[in-house]
Amino acid sequence: MYFASDNTSGAHPKVMEALMAANDGYAMPYGADPIMDEVRQMIRDKFEAPNAAVYLVATGSAANALSLACLCPPWATIFAHVNSHIEEDECGAPEFFTGGSKITLVEGDHARMDPDALRKTIAHTARAGVHNVQRGAVSITNATEAGAVYSVADVTALASVAKEFGLPVHMDGARFANALVSSNASPAEMTWKAGVDVLSFGGTKNGCMGVEAVVIFDPGKHDPWEFELRRKRGGHLFSKHRFLSAQMKAYLQDDLWLMLARHANAMADRLSTGILAIDGAKLMHPTMGNQIFAYWPRAGHRKAMDAGAKYYFWPFDQSLDGPDDELLSARLVPSWSTTEEDVDQFLSLIAG
Amino acid sequence: MYFASDNTSGAHPKVMEALMAANDGYAMPYGADPIMDEVRQMIRDKFEAPNAAVYLVATGSAANALSLACLCPPWATIFAHVNSHIEEDECGAPEFFTGGSKITLVEGDHARMDPDALRKTIAHTARAGVHNVQRGAVSITNATEAGAVYSVADVTALASVAKEFGLPVHMDGARFANALVSSNASPAEMTWKAGVDVLSFGGTKNGCMGVEAVVIFDPGKHDPWEFELRRKRGGHLFSKHRFLSAQMKAYLQDDLWLMLARHANAMADRLSTGILAIDGAKLMHPTMGNQIFAYWPRAGHRKAMDAGAKYYFWPFDQSLDGPDDELLSARLVPSWSTTEEDVDQFLSLIAG
Amino acid sequence: MYFASDNTSGAHPKVMEALMAANDGYAMPYGADPIMDEVRQMIRDKFEAPNAAVYLVATGSAANALSLACLCPPWATIFAHVNSHIEEDECGAPEFFTGGSKITLVEGDHARMDPDALRKTIAHTARAGVHNVQRGAVSITNATEAGAVYSVADVTALASVAKEFGLPVHMDGARFANALVSSNASPAEMTWKAGVDVLSFGGTKNGCMGVEAVVIFDPGKHDPWEFELRRKRGGHLFSKHRFLSAQMKAYLQDDLWLMLARHANAMADRLSTGILAIDGAKLMHPTMGNQIFAYWPRAGHRKAMDAGAKYYFWPFDQSLDGPDDELLSARLVPSWSTTEEDVDQFLSLIAG
Amino acid sequence: MYFASDNTSGAHPKVMEALMAANDGYAMPYGADPIMDEVRQMIRDKFEAPNAAVYLVATGSAANALSLACLCPPWATIFAHVNSHIEEDECGAPEFFTGGSKITLVEGDHARMDPDALRKTIAHTARAGVHNVQRGAVSITNATEAGAVYSVADVTALASVAKEFGLPVHMDGARFANALVSSNASPAEMTWKAGVDVLSFGGTKNGCMGVEAVVIFDPGKHDPWEFELRRKRGGHLFSKHRFLSAQMKAYLQDDLWLMLARHANAMADRLSTGILAIDGAKLMHPTMGNQIFAYWPRAGHRKAMDAGAKYYFWPFDQSLDGPDDELLSARLVPSWSTTEEDVDQFLSLIAG
Repeated sequence: MYFASDNTSGAHPKVMEALMAANDGYAMPYGADPIMDEVRQMIRDKFEAPNAAVYLVATGSAANALSLACLCPPWATIFAHVNSHIEEDECGAPEFFTGGSKITLVEGDHARMDPDALRKTIAHTARAGVHNVQRGAVSITNATEAGAVYSVADVTALASVAKEFGLPVHMDGARFANALVSSNASPAEMTWKAGVDVLSFGGTKNGCMGVEAVVIFDPGKHDPWEFELRRKRGGHLFSKHRFLSAQMKAYLQDDLWLMLARHANAMADRLSTGILAIDGAKLMHPTMGNQIFAYWPRAGHRKAMDAGAKYYFWPFDQSLDGPDDELLSARLVPSWSTTEEDVDQFLSLIAG
Repeated sequence: MYFASDNTSGAHPKVMEALMAANDGYAMPYGADPIMDEVRQMIRDKFEAPNAAVYLVATGSAANALSLACLCPPWATIFAHVNSHIEEDECGAPEFFTGGSKITLVEGDHARMDPDALRKTIAHTARAGVHNVQRGAVSITNATEAGAVYSVADVTALASVAKEFGLPVHMDGARFANALVSSNASPAEMTWKAGVDVLSFGGTKNGCMGVEAVVIFDPGKHDPWEFELRRKRGGHLFSKHRFLSAQMKAYLQDDLWLMLARHANAMADRLSTGILAIDGAKLMHPTMGNQIFAYWPRAGHRKAMDAGAKYYFWPFDQSLDGPDDELLSARLVPSWSTTEEDVDQFLSLIAG
Repeated sequence: MYFASDNTSGAHPKVMEALMAANDGYAMPYGADPIMDEVRQMIRDKFEAPNAAVYLVATGSAANALSLACLCPPWATIFAHVNSHIEEDECGAPEFFTGGSKITLVEGDHARMDPDALRKTIAHTARAGVHNVQRGAVSITNATEAGAVYSVADVTALASVAKEFGLPVHMDGARFANALVSSNASPAEMTWKAGVDVLSFGGTKNGCMGVEAVVIFDPGKHDPWEFELRRKRGGHLFSKHRFLSAQMKAYLQDDLWLMLARHANAMADRLSTGILAIDGAKLMHPTMGNQIFAYWPRAGHRKAMDAGAKYYFWPFDQSLDGPDDELLSARLVPSWSTTEEDVDQFLSLIAG
Repeated sequence: MYFASDNTSGAHPKVMEALMAANDGYAMPYGADPIMDEVRQMIRDKFEAPNAAVYLVATGSAANALSLACLCPPWATIFAHVNSHIEEDECGAPEFFTGGSKITLVEGDHARMDPDALRKTIAHTARAGVHNVQRGAVSITNATEAGAVYSVADVTALASVAKEFGLPVHMDGARFANALVSSNASPAEMTWKAGVDVLSFGGTKNGCMGVEAVVIFDPGKHDPWEFELRRKRGGHLFSKHRFLSAQMKAYLQDDLWLMLARHANAMADRLSTGILAIDGAKLMHPTMGNQIFAYWPRAGHRKAMDAGAKYYFWPFDQSLDGPDDELLSARLVPSWSTTEEDVDQFLSLIAG
């Protein structure tokens, strides 16, 4: 019953197999391995983007920060949701990699930026010319940090606002697969067709060991060489790169990534439905991907935690001490490896 | 016959086994996995440093740049050899992570800094007070980029110079194991006992997939929390951290690291000896670890390269076209996985 | 009728005289001029801070950004008001000089941070350890960008909150003199006695040509040498430094700075009172220093602007076109050089 | 007898007069003052560069660092002489403003880069692709830090090497006027016609209080708006900008700048000639501008210093204690304000 985060799960057996296979013999380093050529082609195919530049790094923060550094100069600002990962959970990585840009916060429910709020915020920025930080880039997290998912229409609406101001659009897709299967969209529809310029395409949370792709859809507009230099300079270019490539290849092969995300989302749905059946329980955010934010009575929390279930109160500062029937809120994040048994056992515990 | 770099080799089977084992079940992320506790203790034991702070990252550039950023403020300079990795092969990672420090170059044979040259260079720095970049840190690469190894006495001599000026000492140990077995020193003797404050302890080149430890020997002097924040902010804190821990544990277990380094060094010795038996051949640098820098006639290069042997001319800009007996220079880097057969086959080819 | 900003005024005749006098003969550069020794002593005396470190720079943004860089590490955040100068009008100078810190915005009326909002905002920051940007410094602008003034009690309340969390306190005193005379406090009461660690002490807006002092009240806590290196490295150390010193000396001599601020505030008061006498007119913020934010009918704006009066609509995007009696809002900033005649002529115009 | 530096002299009376005149009345801030329009036109005219973008800052380090930041990305290196000001005397300002670029050192006599050494150094840089810091910009200091002057042909030769590699060229002209009059070249010939892209055009050392212009000769190639944002963000945009403009206008008016430089150079020539007449004395570098580097016997140094003459031993670490006839070396920097009497008195002292 590990619901603390999808990053507490391991890697899918096929990913491990691929690593074992890739370990055979010698391979040229730093991305010159032949598996990387396959990965590049697979991503281009899946995203219907034959010219896309594709790079691999090992962490989501690296993917985001390096991407944003290519899109936003030091004297500009990134527009992102108040509860985005880049704002809240990367210890200032975007600020560091960009060389000191800002993040300007945009409101919206369930950690989704509201297009009107975005337009108003951008319009409000840089009105006094040289005295102000300039308008830099828009960063959209899909799925969001609150478990919601932007539909293709939602992404298009935000990207359109960005384009009104001539700004590039980044998508933080640490849980891109979960968002995609939730919205029944194609990879292309959810990204470049909707106006996304650069995607952080997550693998780690959804069954890999540690790999994320950065996809630059139009290398004529955003220089891949700059990305490569920033990646190297950031210490993010792997020498034994084949081990990143192998993970990503296994992840993409036979649509493993979509299958795993479908499973995680289904487990979230099962959890969510089960929670709502508990007397007094309710959701904080709609369950659209693989994250649940819900309230249920303290008694259930106590029973689950006593039984060793791992998850976080959300917000953190709540306590098991207090009246049994008081509602406490928590985040639950099932993953590709969560079983129906895990879910049902957990539900039976929290039902009190 | 892959001698292009030790990073063209894969991971040792025991490392792969450890990864498979670590993949079982769930583990807390970001370094809170129990394997990391074992790793920390193993490193403290092996280095006789019971208070050392130990952290893992995935690349050598990250280990170096993050370490140096903790030792050298933005307005200071790092003293390093002209041919050090941090100067020549990290695309400015130290400059980036420190926030704009310099690297001041020190001469010395075989990529080893000469202690007198170091003293003179440090003394020459920052003589005009606030107008000058200040004295920051000394960084020693062991084994060096020219295949030489600093003895414990050599390291002590350099560290003593650093201490004369109150400067901290960093060791870039991407090939630390090779240096250690070459010099028959203990880990403690080669590092903190000789005056090293922070060590980048390499695993990747010597049989791991991608893991390096940073060892801060005196956490009372160099704040580990600062390192942790820099690591996170640099995108170098792994969520599924157990996969770094598992590699490092397997690497240290039963002294696998020393065994692998001994093997690689032995292969280098065999290669080196074989080359010297070729008419006209000679070494550019002494072979002390697992890197050979040698000259032999073009005919031998042609035969080896035609047979598919992988290695680099050193310097790069030499050509297979030209007289048979002209000497061309090359770098050869056998690794933990190099076999005697590889070596002998290669030698028979280049013998012409 | 120049009310666009106090920086549209020139320098006071005594400042110019001091520059002429300082120009005589030779002087050692970079702050080693004897006038600087006098300035340091004068500031120490006036602030009752015999150990304070005192430095001069030429712009307010330099004073603020260099000060904050000494107080806030790259991975931390500065707590400041939504409408502070460092957030809105320095094109990211604090982010640049700190090496990528954030600014976390705090609410409060009239651009004054509310102590409870500050406490809540700080408490909300860095709750997830290494994943979050850390708590850095608190920056208080006095007088504020909305023309309000923090009393000594107000500053004490904010500084106390900062101290609860162990954070240092910076004061942006670009209009420090105006704040001081408005609140009848002594320099010491308004700063270190209230908990301020470092002050940007403005001269430029209040009668100098271009000079600001940075006062580090406790050099044992905040290293002045770091400030000196940052100043030099930022290109802010003047070679012909005597010309900064001379301005500051004249500014302090015989309390010229207080006299000029009293005059500017009196002119603001006269303006403010006059505006309120206009039918329908009202203030947006209380007039406490030398800035007025007020509404009055469009007809009056039209007349004033036609007559060549210089000031800004506030916010900018308002228009002279429209009904005569509609209220438009504006900022007016009289200065040390504003005359009663300027004020009265302006009032007679806008009265319509 | 102030020969410590030309920055120990004050400002020329005409500059002071211009400041007094500019102080009259109100002026729009931040470069929108009408005097700046005149200055821009004067510089365009004098440099025969009708489209040049022209900006003012107050220090030479700011002019250099901001210019270089516009020419060299963070992952690249600036090619400059070992003894250039940007390498030796700016406490890392270029590294700071560029966001962590390097400076790669080029040899050559009298602090002049040798074109062949430059070509070889550039060619040697960035040979290993993404692993290396890239080729950024070439920075030429004229007059040099050793008192030599590059002729138009010299600058053309260096700029041609830069152009071979597609690199932009910066000139650090802190003593541009001295170089120009020494070489009898026109401003255009010495700069853009010879291949210079951006000039730091010094005023401070040659009779101003503190003003330097940055001239971007081709705004189509190097974006002036980026410069403006960097200047603001660096805290280098003056609010009361008219006081920078006024200095620069007076400096250019009636070719005051050339007249002052001619005088300073003439004084240097007189000094140099006088020194060579001393028994045993000799020059370290040719006297081509207004800096003298020379050896003469200790007895003469003792007499001069006893009489209060101000200048530096060069290098610093020499002593008045020792044999009378031992040669000690020193730097002497006469300025626009040095008189023949100063020179002759000094010569009579050091003659022993």
